[in-house]
Amino acid sequence: MSQGAQKTWGGRFSEAPSKIAQEFNASWSFDQRLALVDIEGSLAHAAMLARQGILGPEEAEQIRQGLLSVRQEILEGRFPWREELEDVHMNIEARLTELVGPVGGKLHTARSRNDQVATDLRLWLRGEFSALLGELKALRRVLVEEAEKHLEPPLVLPGYTHLQRAMPVLLSHWFLAYYEMLTRDAGRIQDALRRLNESPLGAAALAGTGFPIDRHFTSQALGFDRPMRNSIDAVASRDFVLEALAALTIGQVNLSRLAEEIVLYSTFEFGFVTLPDAFSTGSSIMPQKKNADHAELIRAKVGRVLGGFVALATLTKGLPLAYNKDLQEDKEPLFDAVDTYRASVRLLAAMLPGLRWNREAMAQAAESGFSLATELADYLALQGVPFREAHHVVGRLVRHCAEAGKELCDLSLAELQGFHPLFGEEALALTRLETAIHRRKSYGGTAPEAVREALRQARLEVET
Amino acid sequence: MSQGAQKTWGGRFSEAPSKIAQEFNASWSFDQRLALVDIEGSLAHAAMLARQGILGPEEAEQIRQGLLSVRQEILEGRFPWREELEDVHMNIEARLTELVGPVGGKLHTARSRNDQVATDLRLWLRGEFSALLGELKALRRVLVEEAEKHLEPPLVLPGYTHLQRAMPVLLSHWFLAYYEMLTRDAGRIQDALRRLNESPLGAAALAGTGFPIDRHFTSQALGFDRPMRNSIDAVASRDFVLEALAALTIGQVNLSRLAEEIVLYSTFEFGFVTLPDAFSTGSSIMPQKKNADHAELIRAKVGRVLGGFVALATLTKGLPLAYNKDLQEDKEPLFDAVDTYRASVRLLAAMLPGLRWNREAMAQAAESGFSLATELADYLALQGVPFREAHHVVGRLVRHCAEAGKELCDLSLAELQGFHPLFGEEALALTRLETAIHRRKSYGGTAPEAVREALRQARLEVET
Amino acid sequence: MSQGAQKTWGGRFSEAPSKIAQEFNASWSFDQRLALVDIEGSLAHAAMLARQGILGPEEAEQIRQGLLSVRQEILEGRFPWREELEDVHMNIEARLTELVGPVGGKLHTARSRNDQVATDLRLWLRGEFSALLGELKALRRVLVEEAEKHLEPPLVLPGYTHLQRAMPVLLSHWFLAYYEMLTRDAGRIQDALRRLNESPLGAAALAGTGFPIDRHFTSQALGFDRPMRNSIDAVASRDFVLEALAALTIGQVNLSRLAEEIVLYSTFEFGFVTLPDAFSTGSSIMPQKKNADHAELIRAKVGRVLGGFVALATLTKGLPLAYNKDLQEDKEPLFDAVDTYRASVRLLAAMLPGLRWNREAMAQAAESGFSLATELADYLALQGVPFREAHHVVGRLVRHCAEAGKELCDLSLAELQGFHPLFGEEALALTRLETAIHRRKSYGGTAPEAVREALRQARLEVET
Amino acid sequence: MSQGAQKTWGGRFSEAPSKIAQEFNASWSFDQRLALVDIEGSLAHAAMLARQGILGPEEAEQIRQGLLSVRQEILEGRFPWREELEDVHMNIEARLTELVGPVGGKLHTARSRNDQVATDLRLWLRGEFSALLGELKALRRVLVEEAEKHLEPPLVLPGYTHLQRAMPVLLSHWFLAYYEMLTRDAGRIQDALRRLNESPLGAAALAGTGFPIDRHFTSQALGFDRPMRNSIDAVASRDFVLEALAALTIGQVNLSRLAEEIVLYSTFEFGFVTLPDAFSTGSSIMPQKKNADHAELIRAKVGRVLGGFVALATLTKGLPLAYNKDLQEDKEPLFDAVDTYRASVRLLAAMLPGLRWNREAMAQAAESGFSLATELADYLALQGVPFREAHHVVGRLVRHCAEAGKELCDLSLAELQGFHPLFGEEALALTRLETAIHRRKSYGGTAPEAVREALRQARLEVET
Repeated sequence: MSQGAQKTWGGRFSEAPSKIAQEFNASWSFDQRLALVDIEGSLAHAAMLARQGILGPEEAEQIRQGLLSVRQEILEGRFPWREELEDVHMNIEARLTELVGPVGGKLHTARSRNDQVATDLRLWLRGEFSALLGELKALRRVLVEEAEKHLEPPLVLPGYTHLQRAMPVLLSHWFLAYYEMLTRDAGRIQDALRRLNESPLGAAALAGTGFPIDRHFTSQALGFDRPMRNSIDAVASRDFVLEALAALTIGQVNLSRLAEEIVLYSTFEFGFVTLPDAFSTGSSIMPQKKNADHAELIRAKVGRVLGGFVALATLTKGLPLAYNKDLQEDKEPLFDAVDTYRASVRLLAAMLPGLRWNREAMAQAAESGFSLATELADYLALQGVPFREAHHVVGRLVRHCAEAGKELCDLSLAELQGFHPLFGEEALALTRLETAIHRRKSYGGTAPEAVREALRQARLEVET
Repeated sequence: MSQGAQKTWGGRFSEAPSKIAQEFNASWSFDQRLALVDIEGSLAHAAMLARQGILGPEEAEQIRQGLLSVRQEILEGRFPWREELEDVHMNIEARLTELVGPVGGKLHTARSRNDQVATDLRLWLRGEFSALLGELKALRRVLVEEAEKHLEPPLVLPGYTHLQRAMPVLLSHWFLAYYEMLTRDAGRIQDALRRLNESPLGAAALAGTGFPIDRHFTSQALGFDRPMRNSIDAVASRDFVLEALAALTIGQVNLSRLAEEIVLYSTFEFGFVTLPDAFSTGSSIMPQKKNADHAELIRAKVGRVLGGFVALATLTKGLPLAYNKDLQEDKEPLFDAVDTYRASVRLLAAMLPGLRWNREAMAQAAESGFSLATELADYLALQGVPFREAHHVVGRLVRHCAEAGKELCDLSLAELQGFHPLFGEEALALTRLETAIHRRKSYGGTAPEAVREALRQARLEVET
Repeated sequence: MSQGAQKTWGGRFSEAPSKIAQEFNASWSFDQRLALVDIEGSLAHAAMLARQGILGPEEAEQIRQGLLSVRQEILEGRFPWREELEDVHMNIEARLTELVGPVGGKLHTARSRNDQVATDLRLWLRGEFSALLGELKALRRVLVEEAEKHLEPPLVLPGYTHLQRAMPVLLSHWFLAYYEMLTRDAGRIQDALRRLNESPLGAAALAGTGFPIDRHFTSQALGFDRPMRNSIDAVASRDFVLEALAALTIGQVNLSRLAEEIVLYSTFEFGFVTLPDAFSTGSSIMPQKKNADHAELIRAKVGRVLGGFVALATLTKGLPLAYNKDLQEDKEPLFDAVDTYRASVRLLAAMLPGLRWNREAMAQAAESGFSLATELADYLALQGVPFREAHHVVGRLVRHCAEAGKELCDLSLAELQGFHPLFGEEALALTRLETAIHRRKSYGGTAPEAVREALRQARLEVET
Repeated sequence: MSQGAQKTWGGRFSEAPSKIAQEFNASWSFDQRLALVDIEGSLAHAAMLARQGILGPEEAEQIRQGLLSVRQEILEGRFPWREELEDVHMNIEARLTELVGPVGGKLHTARSRNDQVATDLRLWLRGEFSALLGELKALRRVLVEEAEKHLEPPLVLPGYTHLQRAMPVLLSHWFLAYYEMLTRDAGRIQDALRRLNESPLGAAALAGTGFPIDRHFTSQALGFDRPMRNSIDAVASRDFVLEALAALTIGQVNLSRLAEEIVLYSTFEFGFVTLPDAFSTGSSIMPQKKNADHAELIRAKVGRVLGGFVALATLTKGLPLAYNKDLQEDKEPLFDAVDTYRASVRLLAAMLPGLRWNREAMAQAAESGFSLATELADYLALQGVPFREAHHVVGRLVRHCAEAGKELCDLSLAELQGFHPLFGEEALALTRLETAIHRRKSYGGTAPEAVREALRQARLEVET
């Protein structure tokens, strides 16, 4: 580094340290997203102050009108944000006071930014999670519809373990596997929503207040289930954000598995599915490419949601009670995670119905690769051969076929019996795809009748 | 690296590659922890096979007796573990077959290691979480008892924000803040427990089975709420482990905050609490030290639990359905997280009652440092001064005191009125600790009557 | 969700699915930050194409002029960004073609977005890391200057282990501990910088190109040390970003420890340091508060930088070669981590010189709390008492003092000898602060002469 | 939980709280791994104490003999570990004193467990990283050998982007991509090794010591480059462990990409490679399966190494200087990460030479799927068609072929010219695999001559 450059910095620092400090502290650029819920909270707080006689009726009305005006300005995009006011709360309060005069300064009576921001964040997250549950249900409905669409006549693909063809399954069954996963994801979001729906408002800075406030009133007015029971906890805790981030991370992981399978199944090598043009992109240099970009992004985005959870867990580690400035950093990862998961859910709901499934390629894959070998082992087991021994017999059989370049269905009864005398005529049918699928009718299995029953339940759930 | 060393490597690799491969794959060293639940699952499976006529009654009885013998061997520490059998399942099955002969090979009928290990892990985690909820309740009871113990006469300490003295609070109120946090932690564990209590058994490798099994029977026999509805999901999903790790991470974060405060409060500088000898350690070189080692470790251990969540989220990211070997890596982070959180909970429950709180130091800290300044601002606000203005007045007052080396309670009425004419006689009382505490009687606040009510509810909860 | 709402979703999706898809894919909002380095890369690429005869001289000149115009538009904030063009590369190329006509389409000859974006990101990071090393040196210089400032007369504070007072150290020594840590942090950034400074340009999509390009020319023109040696690696690898994020994470962790100590030392309880007004904030409800907000934020921001590392490690886990869309997600965590660390470094460099250290409080703390007990144990050891025994003797001595409410320096020789007969006259001096400090003159120790030598070396390093 | 159970716990806690405390604190179960380096450090320390006259020559010799005996006991597995002594250091020192009497207590003169454990950990990691670099070089040599083996006649496979076939590449080129990645990985380990090789010994508890020690002597005796310059930093810092974990995480990510491709290429669908029997496993229920278990595990294990980095970053976040008990938690993640990465490297080195590559399947895949379309676009560009236009022309051509079920090489010149008049005779050759490969001879490209040159360099590097 040159001497000149050094001096430049030194100079900059000493000239305006407070500007550096102020910029470093400001949260306005991201917490403005809380503006509407901040006003919602203030309206309830003002109404309560009036009801309790802490504000006069006229004062309260002035404040209410002022807050409504501020809200209008925000909705219409003409609110005069000022960076030097640092955060959303001060921006709104300052503007309120501009509009209604000194009485605006009374709004903050019996309140602190500590309980205010905790209230705002809970209100915001409640709204987002409610909407998200709607979109997640829409995606789950798509999964059900896709499963229904491909049940009759049944589309079959190989079920994989270790990415090796293991056993044929219905495409509908595969869709329903994701339905189950996403239903649990919705359950976790629901639980988080229920647990966070308590009101911190009135905890003030951390100890409660000496003003004769009514926390039950504001809690009810804001749609919370109850006021939080401990004022320190109310302003200090962010485990509700951690829980939300955990639920979103797990949800995104589940979406990433679906995304990975779409990437795989749309390769030339698998060839099971063709992406709609609207949901694939080309290459700047390779005209033949049709890339599953969106699925790749959904897969990748696990990283950022997980990163957000890590960020918040790290920052709350060892944080003494009650409020600390560190908590300002809770918002960006939460906003980003909610946006990311929501966009991923929405994208999949739009994309899945447009996938074109290649029946022939899937069926061929399901039949070959010895994925029906288990049938023969099961057959022997049913004849009384201990399962482990049956397994070894069929293992030898598969090796024989692989070396001879045959599929199992190419074998004659005599050949089968060469491997074990208990093989009978009916064993031959077992190496046909349809037989294999229909046999797996245990509860939750892939046989059409089992899948139909599962679909019936799922359909009920997404319609209520 | 020398040539000689290079050759050695090369040589070792080519001589026994399969040994490297086998060791790399083996899970026996850690999954043996599942041995008892594995047998529990097998007993239920065998009983079902018999009930459905897949096993003869004698076969089933032989297997049952064999499994009970194996269990006995394990309980008595004389089970002959064999590393070359790789995992707990194969060890037990091989031993069973040694004990009962070839019929042992029939146990695995209509089952796969995929549904077997998923069943085992759910059973194990259910057991651990049930026990953990018990220990967590014990710790929550300790928190309630400590809060009760210090309520009369009330112990007061400064409540902090930004680690600056903000407002006095009751020690009981502080204990109850943690009570609230840990109660939510218990709620998350409870939710995870409820969601995981479904039976994967009978999903077989991934597609269900053609054997006429009864999944509802095994589900019920094993105490599950219901069989899982989709066989692919049953063997492929580990979101229940992720959810468990998330709940434990959040729980450990909350414990770490308590631990941090114990570390702080037991410093010479704060001097609020003295650790019992049994829960502090000395230094090898500094005889005077009395370190809060256990609290430090609880704080630090957030890292390993969070690391476990990250590990599992990373490995399940983009993992295609259904079972993949990657899932073998789900166990160690889970085992470690459960052990870590459980030990931390147990440690705190044992340590907290032995803390000696230094009433005088706490009270002195609570009174000084201008932590009662808010009282005066509130007072002015009640006289009709807009809150923001009241705040500025008192800010000047504090600066005056700080420069003059005075505390607020040293000020005369005349001095107060010099800052604002609306200060009256009764303002003087506000700068006394007791007044401040008693005033904060809003719901959830720190006034003794509010805390007493909170304690009443909490006591009820930990006694049921 | 109501039926109406459901239809709305469905409707929106089916009407304009491609818009959802496009928005999901677009990176323009963040990768525009690469605009200037993108143009830099294109200028070098075009010059090379001309030199190799792939572009005619006039074509090349047209493109060059066009690129310079685009750069000017960007610098002047009048570049017409178009969201539908998705990323920075297409925006610039499209604008170029608008300005210079179809010849603009020739710029992308023998190049792909894959090698283009890899080149851009390396150029950008090189620029940022170079600047960062300058700012880090400025902060290290501040640490040296602060250490110098407080050396004569020496400011003493307690050195802590387990946050218990352990032994007195010079404040200068404490500053130099951070100097060492930050010097290693700079070393890691330097190593990352060296390793990333290779040119991917010319790797094209992944396999190189059939055009007769000269990769050494573009590498040199762009200031890279050499072209990367493998075209697949060149477009597929992001370990250079991971390494950068790791270096920044470790750096932020080290800053967070300094931040934590500033938070602690500025509490009422420690009282070692007073923050400058410009670097502390007040409370909306508690006029007396003076919070170390900036230090708290620096501490907290470890989370987001670490979260970024986790995000990228997670997304590159198991990613097949070569380029995948997932890699688009590499930019945001990198940009954010660089900004965060840089702002933290700058903030500290501006804040540290303004700290006011409270000599008296620090000295008093250093002397009390038995932090000189080790001196007596060392003394006995020097008299031939085995260290472990000496340690026990002094342990008893400390306990005696604690119970009697004495400090060690209050003890008489007779009292000392009551604990061990080998205590002599000169032992009395050892319990004085100054003696203790001056004795620790082992290399790297806290004695003024050792610190002076360390300062001399450090001063040399920050001046070159 | 039943009342009985509650009482049982309560009872256990109160009866033996110190046992809980002791177990919680103990590190012996994992830090015994440091035993040999601990003795190495003690031998150097004792030699220095004698040289400086702090120990008498006979005392020093007694201690030396004692330490050698302890080492022998450890090496022969007959060292009497005692859990109640908590850690490796106390175990060894206690045993030493048993063997040599009270003089053993003098070994700890001028030393603390704080500098002792920091020294041990650096010695241990230095040894591991040195060995690791040897194994990594062995793996890199395997990559070079595999690249050489498959160069003549050249094995070709499709290069992928977005997992879509993009352009053919040589298998040797693909191997060398990983060679480059692993070479950088080795570079990071080398850098970490260099940076950590400094001696903390003599920093004592945190402030240095008053004994006339010689830190340069012990530093040199232990093979360190120099003593650390600041005693506080020496005991407080673990950024060397963080850096090691980061390097290992990045290395494991790179291995996971290779592992993922092995999993993919060994699927039925890709069919490029067959795993050796020794490195694949079967299924308990599906006899036909041949699973790439080891590759799956290498892929999965990114999680645990990354988790370790997260753990340590989280625990060192905001940790005040100097030593805190938290740092005890640095060992397990480090041990585990080193073991994991080393085993993965070793496994791959043993497995890769046994892979059987299926020339025909690879070539067929490389030729089909329009992966040569770029050739035609490049051709048009060389005829002067702007690249973007050429790209569109070939895009139409590909769509035509796809709809007609043709490959590009099936097209006649007339057909080509139907898409653009500038197509000439020589364009026909471009759609042949061999032409395409040979054309990409830009530096670092996939043409055999370029790869041969790259191999020459790599071969040199792995042989030195």
